Amino acid sequence: MSEAALSPLQIQAMAQAAREASRRLATTSSGLRSTALLRLADLLERQAHVLLAANEEDVRAAGDTLPAATLQRLHLDAPKLAAMAQGVRAVAALPDPLHRVQLRRLLDDGLELTRVSCPLGVLCVVFEARPDALVQISALALKSGNAVLLKGGREARRSNAALLAVIQQALAEAGLPDAAVQGLPDREAVAVLLQRPDLVDLVIPRGSRELVQSLQAATRIPVLGHADGICHMYLDEAAETAMAVALVRDAKLQYPAACNAVETVLIHRRAAARLLPALAADLAPRGVELRGCPACLELVPTLGPATEADWDAEYGAPILALKVVADLDAALAHIRAHGSGHTEAIVTRDPRAAARFLAEVDAAGVFHNASTRFADGYRYGFGAEVGISTGRIHARGPVGLEGLLSYRYLLLGHGQCVEDYTGPSGRPFRHLDFTSEP
Amino acid sequence: MSEAALSPLQIQAMAQAAREASRRLATTSSGLRSTALLRLADLLERQAHVLLAANEEDVRAAGDTLPAATLQRLHLDAPKLAAMAQGVRAVAALPDPLHRVQLRRLLDDGLELTRVSCPLGVLCVVFEARPDALVQISALALKSGNAVLLKGGREARRSNAALLAVIQQALAEAGLPDAAVQGLPDREAVAVLLQRPDLVDLVIPRGSRELVQSLQAATRIPVLGHADGICHMYLDEAAETAMAVALVRDAKLQYPAACNAVETVLIHRRAAARLLPALAADLAPRGVELRGCPACLELVPTLGPATEADWDAEYGAPILALKVVADLDAALAHIRAHGSGHTEAIVTRDPRAAARFLAEVDAAGVFHNASTRFADGYRYGFGAEVGISTGRIHARGPVGLEGLLSYRYLLLGHGQCVEDYTGPSGRPFRHLDFTSEP
Repeated sequence: MSEAALSPLQIQAMAQAAREASRRLATTSSGLRSTALLRLADLLERQAHVLLAANEEDVRAAGDTLPAATLQRLHLDAPKLAAMAQGVRAVAALPDPLHRVQLRRLLDDGLELTRVSCPLGVLCVVFEARPDALVQISALALKSGNAVLLKGGREARRSNAALLAVIQQALAEAGLPDAAVQGLPDREAVAVLLQRPDLVDLVIPRGSRELVQSLQAATRIPVLGHADGICHMYLDEAAETAMAVALVRDAKLQYPAACNAVETVLIHRRAAARLLPALAADLAPRGVELRGCPACLELVPTLGPATEADWDAEYGAPILALKVVADLDAALAHIRAHGSGHTEAIVTRDPRAAARFLAEVDAAGVFHNASTRFADGYRYGFGAEVGISTGRIHARGPVGLEGLLSYRYLLLGHGQCVEDYTGPSGRPFRHLDFTSEP
Repeated sequence: MSEAALSPLQIQAMAQAAREASRRLATTSSGLRSTALLRLADLLERQAHVLLAANEEDVRAAGDTLPAATLQRLHLDAPKLAAMAQGVRAVAALPDPLHRVQLRRLLDDGLELTRVSCPLGVLCVVFEARPDALVQISALALKSGNAVLLKGGREARRSNAALLAVIQQALAEAGLPDAAVQGLPDREAVAVLLQRPDLVDLVIPRGSRELVQSLQAATRIPVLGHADGICHMYLDEAAETAMAVALVRDAKLQYPAACNAVETVLIHRRAAARLLPALAADLAPRGVELRGCPACLELVPTLGPATEADWDAEYGAPILALKVVADLDAALAHIRAHGSGHTEAIVTRDPRAAARFLAEVDAAGVFHNASTRFADGYRYGFGAEVGISTGRIHARGPVGLEGLLSYRYLLLGHGQCVEDYTGPSGRPFRHLDFTSEP
């Protein structure tokens, strides 16, 4: 990514070049896009020394100014590069998402309608210090025929510039326009693009809640993603103790910083005396800070007290809020009031309670007897993940390549006029669907 | 619709009641929603006298302050009410769009993922003076399990209030919450809701370009629709004269006010001497005002001159801009520069020219040898139409019930934890799709 600040006109010119490149990509064959991706995978391995040297500079420059977890995510090594290359090859191997016939219908003899998948156009992706996200998102964009303008974290700027150079080399070697993947120099460049719905079709934030919210507040361009991941696990009266404890442990501790980690566990009052001590006995020794409602504290006095703010907290850390609820209805009401529409789970052996929970909870993911941590594109089998959306428009939940696509209606006729199909004596439409893809 | 101005708090309370109602609708059976729709159809016919009396008052109050076309759209009569009732019955008869399994995948033994369609939630629909749109959009919303807040034109306020009363009666008689369909009193109420993405999931404007643009500019809530319908017809060198003339006539004159009417006809320079005089001879006597580029004027001196502004004009009237272009590339460039992404057509006998046009034009509809007027939900066989979208996110082109839906991922497990599937010794996923819907 370029170091120099660019003028708004220069930023717009970049976006216009991306738009031109996206037009070219939209009409390419699957083979050409795959060639570019496979070339990229090779270059990531062959130019490892260049990439690792750039990354080493980033890590050195960051020194001890970054939290350990951030520094760990910034750090690249040979195995991480190999995994990146494997990820790109996996994307290359996915079926071509473009030019797919989604609908084929005879409106009348010699008047055939087809709906065909196509790219969205130009994506603007803003992510925080994780160089591997740059490669992953670029691969997904290319696979789906979209151009992408990327803004990475400042901490990773040398790594990102080196990775971008490799991506653009792969594009050029495959005969594709290198303007299809470009780096944006700074936040000001992003700010310019956020005001241009004509130049950018979709904004994808990969990072903190603050990042997502600031982008959502600053633009009318659709933003794919989620600000909050406040996930609940409701332990019903008929929850098995061992299963409930294992699932809460996994949902909280398997990766506490993930958006699909559980934040609040709701417990049916008639199961609380059985489940709460078991949870505390399992989680406290593992370093989980437990914060309970007054009813919880009565049962397990060693818990810390939860405040109202805890019901709306996304800890991203080994902290868990616990609340006793009167029944399933009270659990549903709590989730409606405090959930972020990400992923909600019930643990129970009672099929009727499970059925109600599955039917009534309005979230991207609604789980029965499974860890909330399964809410993930890889685990769902999408091959790759653009992000997880909590919006209801366009894509929802873990989003694979499908979220980077639109479609066009193609109509092939022989001179038909609408007038001929109008009025009492007009021809009727046939509306005959082809049963399978041609 | 209520006459009195309401406070922002009252408007929010209405939207919250709509949200509650939408939760109830989301879990209803198809039968219950169909019952309400069939009851509505009956009431439209049985209470015709009440509805027509209210409409007569609107028409009388409007007097001669409205253009004749608007007055005609405002006016209701018995056949229009019968057609409305038939439209509602047709929506009732469509397959249930809710609770449909879009994906069913075994992640592992005893761990089953399904993706199930669900409503968006709460719609805010703003339309201009056409009482029948109120009934149509309410029927589509109910069918798809969405609640809807409606703001109609002031001219139709008595008609709309009477229709709303009938809709709410039908809901109540079917045992559904009447807050599922509510009228908003004024623009101020809409303005309050536009600031609340938490209360409204989708805004649908049904009306003029100015209405659409003003709503788009005022909200971060997704707006489904289109501001412009600047459609082109490109007459290629290999266009048949008779077909070209008939298609342009249909696309311009069959309903000039429609968004899918053609505004500019581009003509290949080697076909201009053949096609232009034929077009002029057909269209001028039918009252079409023809405005041509300088090359057009040389061939047919009786044309009026086109200015630069004509290439960006949506006339909505029997006016047609004509331009001679050097070749297909020039036509594609003109469409890129001036098209609104609505519907674009090529007329040609040359399959290679047609293939390039179909592949390269980025619009919701791309047609070969067919009138642009076919771009319509009814003609496409969607049964009913929410609107036509020129956006790429969510629904594009003519939008049927599908555009009012989202989906949820349901995961049914037996206590599975993500930790068991993690790391080198983790269980692999099976990702086995069921071949057909259960």
